[in-house]
Amino acid sequence: MTDCLAYGAHEAHAQLAPMRIARRVLRDDDVAIEIAYCGVCHSDLHFAHNHWGSTVFPCVPGHEIVGHVTAVGSQVSRYQVGDRVAVGCLVDSCQHCAACEAHQEPHCEKGMTATYNGRDRHTGDVTLGGYAQHIVVREEFVLSVPAALDLRYTGPLLCAGITVWVPLREHGVKQGTRIAVVGLGGLGHMAVKLAAALGAEVTVITTSPSKADDARALGAHHVLLSSDPEAMKGAANRFDLILDTIPSKHNVNPYLMLLARNGKLVLVGALEPLEPIHGGLLARNNRSISGALIGGLAQTQELLEFCAEHQVLPNCEMIRMQDINAAFERMEKNDVKYRFVIDMASLADVQVD
Amino acid sequence: MTDCLAYGAHEAHAQLAPMRIARRVLRDDDVAIEIAYCGVCHSDLHFAHNHWGSTVFPCVPGHEIVGHVTAVGSQVSRYQVGDRVAVGCLVDSCQHCAACEAHQEPHCEKGMTATYNGRDRHTGDVTLGGYAQHIVVREEFVLSVPAALDLRYTGPLLCAGITVWVPLREHGVKQGTRIAVVGLGGLGHMAVKLAAALGAEVTVITTSPSKADDARALGAHHVLLSSDPEAMKGAANRFDLILDTIPSKHNVNPYLMLLARNGKLVLVGALEPLEPIHGGLLARNNRSISGALIGGLAQTQELLEFCAEHQVLPNCEMIRMQDINAAFERMEKNDVKYRFVIDMASLADVQVD
Repeated sequence: MTDCLAYGAHEAHAQLAPMRIARRVLRDDDVAIEIAYCGVCHSDLHFAHNHWGSTVFPCVPGHEIVGHVTAVGSQVSRYQVGDRVAVGCLVDSCQHCAACEAHQEPHCEKGMTATYNGRDRHTGDVTLGGYAQHIVVREEFVLSVPAALDLRYTGPLLCAGITVWVPLREHGVKQGTRIAVVGLGGLGHMAVKLAAALGAEVTVITTSPSKADDARALGAHHVLLSSDPEAMKGAANRFDLILDTIPSKHNVNPYLMLLARNGKLVLVGALEPLEPIHGGLLARNNRSISGALIGGLAQTQELLEFCAEHQVLPNCEMIRMQDINAAFERMEKNDVKYRFVIDMASLADVQVD
Repeated sequence: MTDCLAYGAHEAHAQLAPMRIARRVLRDDDVAIEIAYCGVCHSDLHFAHNHWGSTVFPCVPGHEIVGHVTAVGSQVSRYQVGDRVAVGCLVDSCQHCAACEAHQEPHCEKGMTATYNGRDRHTGDVTLGGYAQHIVVREEFVLSVPAALDLRYTGPLLCAGITVWVPLREHGVKQGTRIAVVGLGGLGHMAVKLAAALGAEVTVITTSPSKADDARALGAHHVLLSSDPEAMKGAANRFDLILDTIPSKHNVNPYLMLLARNGKLVLVGALEPLEPIHGGLLARNNRSISGALIGGLAQTQELLEFCAEHQVLPNCEMIRMQDINAAFERMEKNDVKYRFVIDMASLADVQVD
């Protein structure tokens, strides 16, 4: 075991504070990583505050991890010391079920192991995430960061990015696809950039006229105000795909009406009961609504390559680890454009007794 | 114009009664049909009683129509006098939009013309359905009934049958597909028969233990009682496709939990707001929920050929036209196995002043 400095919560309503945590001795297939940057996901806040009731404390959040390899286990073949690598939302899975064999590890039939608040498959210990100096991860769950990707901006691709990439790819978004993105936060802004890079005709649907300029700056071709009934009516039956990034309970019926024949609405934010969906709106135009979770390792690697090639990068605000509590407060007010990224070099200034 | 005997409603709360109705003089592309049988759909009851508030009276229901050609317009090439033909839920569409060109006429961008309570695209007259001796329909919307199909049992294929056939085909149901059918009424019993004929492993999900024997007799391999929490838990993540035929507001979450990875739930009954769907259930396993409407003409013809080849026929109870009001009352109590079919020869005994 080695230990390192981290930021975590000791109990549900506590502020995040510095603590020392243990990282395991390398197994044969493990990669040790010095963390350079870690993106801040809304889930981090939910887990740290135990909003979902499932948090085991102490909790160290963070699943948008990038850094450099510092050591490898005896059987590791893909990585060597010094490599630029990344770790996303999962650090293990059974590797044998149909889902794993289909490269859909997040849907592992035995349950994936989450990067934090998961259970180590060998020891049963609770996993601790990337708000830390170091992490040790099984080789198969470590991604390679292409040379052309700026490490500072890579973190948010690992959760916000891959969550929207999966439905964009699954539904074959390409030149000319008419796609709408509902909501312009961490996921929404990545959806706009990625869809535009794929050649789609991108519309941002928002309640806020103030977001129109931002949307266009991110690459959106059109902005549709959901608060304007005439505009919404005019857009009926228009879109092939709608990515709905609203992270809480809401009414999807006004968006379902905008779907063209065989159109799909994918929920990438709300993981809770929605307001009642009208069955007739689904029957008309043969529409569907589906959910999405983060992607498998192969598809996440594909995303990193795509972003390197097309220089698609999230808009990030860099923060020090010490400022995480203020960042959480700003996230709760949607006051971030569009993702906080922690510079782990800031931990050098931190002392823990 | 010619006139003929029909059964219809003069106002919302009236019993259906005999009336004389006009059928148009044949246009160049029209086929005149003497109706032999007409299936009784739950929609017929809804329209006759104006449950959806959109009925124009007098209303003559009936969109599961089979019979023989008695005359054809000058430009008709596909049919001749004496041919066995059928007409389903639609009698016209624009024929030029993307939906029509994709053979999805029910999704016509200009709106399909329903077989009854629709609007004739030439005259604007309200269309009158198949509870009648004769009907006149544009050639493109007339189907050919294969010689091997018993005319008496063909009617219900045109609405109940095609409604479940569309999702079975869209989702590629084949040998080994694990499919569940929720509800065992007109649509559900056709879904069981068709899915079994396609080689799928069919489970019927029902609240009633009493339906287990019926389900197996129809071809189901398994019966799952939705009222048994242990059984439902044991079936978690099992099915590739669920056809949900429940015709009213209900809670789909218990069924969503049964879907395997990439599993689809298709609503073929409920055309109204559902109880709140849990977004997290859609994200888990990458599940989706969609709607379905009747199919296009080509796919309906495909269904007729399939049913002829595999001798898949609905279970019908033949009634006289005069008994339609009693049949409606029994339908409201789900007292029919599984579809009423009106023998139009019974109209010979009816007099209208």
